[in-house]
This record gives sequence, structure tokens and C-alpha cells, in this order.
Amino acid sequence: MDRGFFLTFEGLDGSGKTTQIRKLTGWLEAQGRQVVVTRQPGATVIGERIRKLLLASSTENLAPRAELGLMFSDRAQAIAEIISPALQAGKVVVCDRYTDSTEAYQGGGRQLGSEVVLQLHEVMCGGLQPDLTILLLPDFDASLTRARRRNTRMEKSGKDEGRFEREDEAFYRRVYDKYREIAARDTLRVVTMEGDADIEKVHQRIVRVVEERLAL
Amino acid sequence: MDRGFFLTFEGLDGSGKTTQIRKLTGWLEAQGRQVVVTRQPGATVIGERIRKLLLASSTENLAPRAELGLMFSDRAQAIAEIISPALQAGKVVVCDRYTDSTEAYQGGGRQLGSEVVLQLHEVMCGGLQPDLTILLLPDFDASLTRARRRNTRMEKSGKDEGRFEREDEAFYRRVYDKYREIAARDTLRVVTMEGDADIEKVHQRIVRVVEERLAL
Repeated sequence: MDRGFFLTFEGLDGSGKTTQIRKLTGWLEAQGRQVVVTRQPGATVIGERIRKLLLASSTENLAPRAELGLMFSDRAQAIAEIISPALQAGKVVVCDRYTDSTEAYQGGGRQLGSEVVLQLHEVMCGGLQPDLTILLLPDFDASLTRARRRNTRMEKSGKDEGRFEREDEAFYRRVYDKYREIAARDTLRVVTMEGDADIEKVHQRIVRVVEERLAL
Repeated sequence: MDRGFFLTFEGLDGSGKTTQIRKLTGWLEAQGRQVVVTRQPGATVIGERIRKLLLASSTENLAPRAELGLMFSDRAQAIAEIISPALQAGKVVVCDRYTDSTEAYQGGGRQLGSEVVLQLHEVMCGGLQPDLTILLLPDFDASLTRARRRNTRMEKSGKDEGRFEREDEAFYRRVYDKYREIAARDTLRVVTMEGDADIEKVHQRIVRVVEERLAL
């Protein structure tokens, strides 16, 4: 295989992305694939500084468009430093969040709309799209509870990334609905895992999808 | 006057922007105008953090598109916090650098081209254009010498904003040429002050232009 494979995971915090990425990475490596696991925002040295600006709850009054620009700056840096070189080397890139997150959170949650996000994606990412996106959509209420529990834990451990988690339920509802809209629009790229199946079952379903796509 | 007036200064470092802005601001205030003086990047708390990322020579391998996104994030924040409120309050906003700088430095200097910059301007700034832009274009060689002298002074004083000044002469030539191109394209908005007239003479020419435009 000369060309790599670009795979993204999407969903609310608490949807199980981290666990599923870990399990899938193990499986991919067992198949003999070279895998690069990354996340957005914050995968590069510059991105880490942008991530702090974006997520610290001490960042107040960040204008929605400034937030949007920072997200895409992080992404452009990650593409240049990590994603493009890995794909060119024929590796599988597994990325925790990509432009769909920006469309869901800033386009949906912050109500900037999809169009402005997709325009920025074209300009800032040269339109680079994942070959496959796994969207984890457990029941909305369960996700929200888990996201908040996680946030409380992080606060107690002194890690301040609570700016998004302070948003209200209506914000998360808009994010969730926008994710559904993206999945309905881009049925070939986005595969949605609905409901609260157990971890192992979801993993097996993801493996079947990835296996099929990698074989293409 | 119900609506404010948005005035920007453009040109290479060392072109005399700071001096001319100070003198013009004095004149405007003497006319009884309320003036807000600002600069890009770095006018807001968030912008100051972005400016550090952008200008510190310790920031290495910043991808051109990430740099572009950071410039526009700073700008979107400044528009939301400073420029729009001041214009709505009927004030004169005098801004040291705006989108023309991004087109000249990133579009021209970094060779990203004008189109990508102008697209981002539309999305990130909602197309907000200055009512008037004063472009200071002294002789190229003189500007370059002054910019470098200034950089050496700043390094000695411990202020590290040398990332752009490390660029070579060809980079500055492209910036200079792009400024000319912008002025030739947008003749109504951009008024160019060429050559090395003395400070007072340039100030008087700027006053005449501003007086005429404000009277409109």
C-alpha cells in the first residue's frame, strides 16, 4: 500500500472515543499496519499552546470567530507536521476529532453555521477529508452525564480544560444534532455507532467497518 | 456623526507608521474627535497571547496556513472587542496593520497568494474594510535598513519579536511588491505615501487626505 488511510473519531466527550481508539489501534497494529494516533486540538508544540488558549476556563470573552480560527490554525499545523507526512509514508492516521468537531461545536453549538466552517476547512486544510469517520453517538443523556463527571474529575486533578464543559445542555443538544446532520449528509464517509452497546461490541463493529474500507 | 471612521496604517516595519499614527492621533483629538488607537496583532488579552506565538523567534516550524489562521483569529477578536464597538459609538479607529498586512506578508512574503487571504478575510472579519488606508512606502532599501536596526535594538532590550525580521531580503521585496499591488487594485481606499519626505511633510499630506475623507 502506497497511500495511507486517514481515519477520524468523532462524538461528544464521554462517548467512548479514547477507549475505542486505543482498542482499534491495537487491532491495526496486530494486522501489521503502521499507525499514527493523534488528536485535535493540541498534537503539536504550537498546537499545545493553542489548545491551552482554547480550553482553559480562564480564557474569557473569546470571540466565536477567533475560536474558530484557532481551531483551524491547530489543524493546519497538525496536517503539515503530522498527518500529511504520515499519509505520504503509507501509514494509517487515527485522529481524535477533526473538522466535523468544529462543525458540530462551533457551527452547531456556537451557532456559527456549517457554511463558515466548511469554507475555512477548504482554505485552511486544503479540503483534506478523512477516508473514514467513526461517529460515536450513545444516548444523549448518558453522554452528557459522563462528560460532566469527567470534567469534575479533571478539575479535581487540577487540569483546567473546562471551558467547553461549562456550556449548558442546549449547547450540547445543538452539537449532537449537528453531528447527526453531518452523518446524514455524508453517508459514505461517516459511519455512526448509535446507542449504548458495550465496549467490546462497538469495537467489533468498528473493526468490521475498518477492515472493509482498508481492503478497498 | 453617528457612524465611526475606520482608518488603517500599512507598510513595512521601519516605514514610520508609529510616528505618523501618533502625530495624526494628536491632530484628530485636537479636532474634537474621539480616537481609539490599536494595532494588530496583539491588541486584546487573547491577541497578546497569539502575538507571542506569532512573533517570538522561538516559534519554529509554524506552518504558513497556521500562521495565517492565527493572524485572523487575533483580528476577529480585535474586531469583536475593540473595533466594532468603537465604530458603533461613532469613534475614529486608527489601526496599525490590518488585512493588507496579512495579504502582503503571508500572501506575498510567504507566497500563499492573495486569494486565500481574501477568502479568510471574508469569513473571519465578515468583510469589514477600512474607510481609508494610509500605505507608507519609503524607498525599499531605506525601510529594510531601518527595520533591521530596530530589530537589533529590540533584541538588545530583551524583547523577542524577531521571527519576521529574520527573513531575507527577497521576502521583504515580495511584501513590498504585494503592497504596491493592493494599492493599485484598491485605489479609492488606499492612499500611498511614497519616498522619503520628512516626517512633518508626510504628516501634513496625511492630514489633508484624512480631513477630506472625514468631511464626506
